[in-house]
Amino acid sequence: MKISLVDAISFSKWVFEKHNVPTKHSDICADVLISADELGFKTHGLSRLGYYIKRIKDGVIKVENEPELIRDKKSCGIVDGKNTLGQIVGKFAMDIAIKKAEQHGISCVAVKNSSHYGIASYYSRYATEKNLVGMSFTNARPAVAPVYGLEPKMGTNPYAIAFPSDMKFPFSIDCATSIWQRGDLEVRARQEPNSYVPGCAIESENQNLTFERSLRWLKKGIAALKPVGGHKGYGLSVAIELMCSAFQSGAYMSKLSGLYEGNEDDPSYDIGHFFICVDPENFTDIKTFKKNVGDVLRELKNSKPKKQTEDILVPGELEYLSSQKVHKDGIEINAELFDELKKLGYETWQKQNTTKNSK
Amino acid sequence: MKISLVDAISFSKWVFEKHNVPTKHSDICADVLISADELGFKTHGLSRLGYYIKRIKDGVIKVENEPELIRDKKSCGIVDGKNTLGQIVGKFAMDIAIKKAEQHGISCVAVKNSSHYGIASYYSRYATEKNLVGMSFTNARPAVAPVYGLEPKMGTNPYAIAFPSDMKFPFSIDCATSIWQRGDLEVRARQEPNSYVPGCAIESENQNLTFERSLRWLKKGIAALKPVGGHKGYGLSVAIELMCSAFQSGAYMSKLSGLYEGNEDDPSYDIGHFFICVDPENFTDIKTFKKNVGDVLRELKNSKPKKQTEDILVPGELEYLSSQKVHKDGIEINAELFDELKKLGYETWQKQNTTKNSK
Repeated sequence: MKISLVDAISFSKWVFEKHNVPTKHSDICADVLISADELGFKTHGLSRLGYYIKRIKDGVIKVENEPELIRDKKSCGIVDGKNTLGQIVGKFAMDIAIKKAEQHGISCVAVKNSSHYGIASYYSRYATEKNLVGMSFTNARPAVAPVYGLEPKMGTNPYAIAFPSDMKFPFSIDCATSIWQRGDLEVRARQEPNSYVPGCAIESENQNLTFERSLRWLKKGIAALKPVGGHKGYGLSVAIELMCSAFQSGAYMSKLSGLYEGNEDDPSYDIGHFFICVDPENFTDIKTFKKNVGDVLRELKNSKPKKQTEDILVPGELEYLSSQKVHKDGIEINAELFDELKKLGYETWQKQNTTKNSK
Repeated sequence: MKISLVDAISFSKWVFEKHNVPTKHSDICADVLISADELGFKTHGLSRLGYYIKRIKDGVIKVENEPELIRDKKSCGIVDGKNTLGQIVGKFAMDIAIKKAEQHGISCVAVKNSSHYGIASYYSRYATEKNLVGMSFTNARPAVAPVYGLEPKMGTNPYAIAFPSDMKFPFSIDCATSIWQRGDLEVRARQEPNSYVPGCAIESENQNLTFERSLRWLKKGIAALKPVGGHKGYGLSVAIELMCSAFQSGAYMSKLSGLYEGNEDDPSYDIGHFFICVDPENFTDIKTFKKNVGDVLRELKNSKPKKQTEDILVPGELEYLSSQKVHKDGIEINAELFDELKKLGYETWQKQNTTKNSK
């Protein structure tokens, strides 16, 4: 089944709006959400719409609140997200980082009390539209064990870095610091609950947990995902945890969940983000800078592939190819997601009518 | 065999000095070099002294030059290393980043025309001594193939990030973005040339190359190391390549070697670095910040280990333990390295006497 990009944006905007998200914010939320489907991050797009709406209905995400810049010093700042939607908080904070970078050269903004902000690279890529280099980091509820550890402590803490280039797309990376992401596990647990991949999650008995059990045990805190590359991913993940919590003196690791004690569907809250922005114009003119970036990507692109038939992809290219396909053919959704969205649409439509009738 | 920390520093300082490195710079070079042995990075310490001296003698490293700040705009700067020793260039650039961070909040300095600067974390840890967060990145001559690729293109491009903490040591990570580092391969090729680890290096025939052959073929450009975690390490490695080259419009990837065409011992040159510094005082008081960092590390440290008998280590702790051991027992060196250093010492002594006699 396919849904056009325009329809996907209108639909999610309408759903957000009817769940009391102010119109100006619904635009942003729909844009962040559908950009994931557009760029090929299927775990973070339409399939997550229901997740956000549930959090709003549960009162965990407080859409009536507005994020606020609570500390503004030189090229640094702290934003309090006041537990509204992470997409609104992220965009608000990145806009401040962009302004500060244009003023000072390089800037950073730490965010507290936010919630899941969608794909990390939405914000780093957004900076490249203003001809800036953007970096975006977030912590998340506990999922990953430290090396030699067994308990989920760090989140899947992704790093997203984007550089504007003279190619058809910016350089862009967006990677979790764990081997497996929580989103991937969710998808596989739904599609093939009883399958497993060795080492996908660890627990005390060293069993090969099925996807369904991995996810359930992860939520219970008795299984954990593993950091990518052992101590390399572990160290980077903790560095991101520190960027996202230590500057704003906020919640970290175990304090990012536990709102509903014992509830397997325990939501994350008080999430922290960290944004860095650099204005290349302080180093050289933007045209030269973009060419410099493109030159590196072209040398990689033109290097010898393992198989003659395979193309070497440069970071950001997969997203570009996905975007082209989606603009042409629309977003592919499976039957299960279609049913979920239909149900969400029906509930929203009912809500709309109830609201109208009660007026 | 063991050599005390003090003796190791004096010896390397003397060797640098007698090879025309000005006294003030010899101090820095010896400090950077021996800090690697102190912190447990054995591939980057005394075992590399001969490497630097050879480069000086070959005229590839030009110790008569002084690094210069050639662009100074807001919180950003470009340093031209003029191909002197990377340690001198790195310290010079980090000092500028530190000053700029104290002034602006966050700063970054791009470096061009440098050479191997020792362990990346020397500079990030140095920032923590001034109560700042430090980040240090460098490119290096081609060694790592892109995903789906076969040719060595990126360097082992490490990332080093350090946060001051209220523990006995700073948070500190220093990791190559490849599975194997060049230094490790050099050590193994010397110790057990005919052994191999599957997948340590790749080439077109998919053979399991021995360590000796891996290193030799790597130098020839027909084998390559692999990025850690597939596209995750690949993306990060390219991001570091861009930080270290695009801002300063300098050399990158293939342009970082090839000085001696066809020579297996081809040195790297025109290396780029990138330093970021953040002053936490713009976010909160330094005492609170250090406690915030310590709190995250303590929660990790106190989490459940895989084996009851094993301790969970936090990033920076291994370096601390190594440092304590070295301060007490000295630096352990094997017979081969001892012979190498003895030879280097004798040559330096001869050089000193020749210089004296010719005066």
